[in-house]
Amino acid sequence: MSSILLNCMGTVTDHSEYSEPEVPFKNPQIHVKNPHLDTMEEDILYHFNLGTKTHNLPEMFGDVKFVCVGGSANRMKSFAQFIHQELALPGNMDNVTDICEGTDRYSMYKVGPVLSISHGMGVPSISIMLHELIKLLHHARCIDFILFRIGTSGGVGLEPGTVVVTDKAVDCFFRAQFEQVVLGKVVTRSTELDVGVSKELLQCSSELDDVPTVIGNTMCTSDFYEGQGRLDGALCSFSTEDKLEYLRKAYNTGVRNIEMESTVFAAMCRACAIKAAVVCVTLLNRFDGDQISTPHDVLVEYQQRPQVLVAHFIKKRLGLIV
Amino acid sequence: MSSILLNCMGTVTDHSEYSEPEVPFKNPQIHVKNPHLDTMEEDILYHFNLGTKTHNLPEMFGDVKFVCVGGSANRMKSFAQFIHQELALPGNMDNVTDICEGTDRYSMYKVGPVLSISHGMGVPSISIMLHELIKLLHHARCIDFILFRIGTSGGVGLEPGTVVVTDKAVDCFFRAQFEQVVLGKVVTRSTELDVGVSKELLQCSSELDDVPTVIGNTMCTSDFYEGQGRLDGALCSFSTEDKLEYLRKAYNTGVRNIEMESTVFAAMCRACAIKAAVVCVTLLNRFDGDQISTPHDVLVEYQQRPQVLVAHFIKKRLGLIV
Repeated sequence: MSSILLNCMGTVTDHSEYSEPEVPFKNPQIHVKNPHLDTMEEDILYHFNLGTKTHNLPEMFGDVKFVCVGGSANRMKSFAQFIHQELALPGNMDNVTDICEGTDRYSMYKVGPVLSISHGMGVPSISIMLHELIKLLHHARCIDFILFRIGTSGGVGLEPGTVVVTDKAVDCFFRAQFEQVVLGKVVTRSTELDVGVSKELLQCSSELDDVPTVIGNTMCTSDFYEGQGRLDGALCSFSTEDKLEYLRKAYNTGVRNIEMESTVFAAMCRACAIKAAVVCVTLLNRFDGDQISTPHDVLVEYQQRPQVLVAHFIKKRLGLIV
Repeated sequence: MSSILLNCMGTVTDHSEYSEPEVPFKNPQIHVKNPHLDTMEEDILYHFNLGTKTHNLPEMFGDVKFVCVGGSANRMKSFAQFIHQELALPGNMDNVTDICEGTDRYSMYKVGPVLSISHGMGVPSISIMLHELIKLLHHARCIDFILFRIGTSGGVGLEPGTVVVTDKAVDCFFRAQFEQVVLGKVVTRSTELDVGVSKELLQCSSELDDVPTVIGNTMCTSDFYEGQGRLDGALCSFSTEDKLEYLRKAYNTGVRNIEMESTVFAAMCRACAIKAAVVCVTLLNRFDGDQISTPHDVLVEYQQRPQVLVAHFIKKRLGLIV
């Protein structure tokens, strides 16, 4: 296994003799790493309610250049409408329709070259979506696209409303890696993201008013309460001081925000050679509290900041602004 | 720490000096295990869009005796309508309204003594919901309720459409435990479920036509594709034989179905002394394939089976049938 493949397909740790064989790309623009797919007569993307026999995926999605994903279905619909307006596309922005209408697992909207998809909360939920999204883009023969996660997060030592562009996605032990259990064996994958896209996003933020942005590490946890050191869950057996000590440790390793999807997002994108970035706004400063008690209208404005930033990036890439 | 607390609050493993102190129940009917909650002036259940200052939770929820949770928002709405009909409650079943209307994270319906809530897909998504649900039931002073997860799953060696009532919820190494990382330390909790409720459900199934039911172990994974040995994800580096060997191992340890929420559901219910059961229908037999290609109407009928079974249980408990 070459060092390149070690980086992008993962290394095997612990009690495991498992190894991931090299799966050479047949075509540089096709990003799946699964030789079995070629042998399938039909591919049903079950959680999207789409399939290769029932839908003409190249026609529907072949021109996609930017894919934006986020937790909430309503937010991703709003984002689609916002992008429609920002790109000055013809037609009424209120008429965007959910491509995954037949299922309530995810929502998907296509606006020009931009795809906007919801992924629910947590690593498993986004991972199902990413498997099916990457296969969809493969079947649709998409090339040269960029994938963004635009989300919300808890801030660590930042003013609420600050946008964090993720440098490294780290786990709850502050390691830049994602562990996936495959057939009972732990496979560890790198969670490094595209440095170029992150820098370009930071540059974009400097051209905008009211989108304060930093680059920092993002910690991804599998629980919102105990897993993020919150004192207000149904279960909590640690003290305020224990919590603050953990957050200080996180801060000292470069963590600036905490959310629940970034590691698997980064790992899968890297494994499939997809350029990707994570752009999350912080809704509170966790050093100051745990509950999200900010007024609704302020939260709504905060949640628009990653959208405004990514929209600016897209418009620049499309040459709509210089 | 007493052995009882070791069982219900968890034991600490690995590189950890962390220990969970005994938190005595103030009141046997109150199930939260968090001393900090008593010191909070207000508790905002953020992902439900409910709070102790903005909502009269005892009035809204005090009479709840059965809580049913499932992944899909649409399915949990249908279940609420179905229960409305089954309990012959007054009013139009089409008028059930989403209590969590102000957010799209979860949906919640109350029909008489039954609460129906969606939890999305995967352990993190259901764990956020469970933290807030358990606090809600605590604030509402609910007593003597039973919590059911009614869901879908992949079957292991079973005819599609079979309902599995979970004996033990096991992880992807076939261990009846759930690992939660708390402040960077691994806490291991038991995932044993209530044997009495499971047996009662099996008895109920014998009184129904067309709800073939078994008791078996349920494996909970954090990924739908690689994590469940599927050959049809965006990433796959194992063979059909590797997959079948893993499924055979699972079968031999008593696993009869695979889903993505049962371990944390069982662990949190046990930690909070809540009687609970997991009731999932199998949509396919994983020995025969990976894709869910069964016709839509057949899938819809399968998905109703856990609902029919739990509705029968509820009606018997309420004395509506003998």
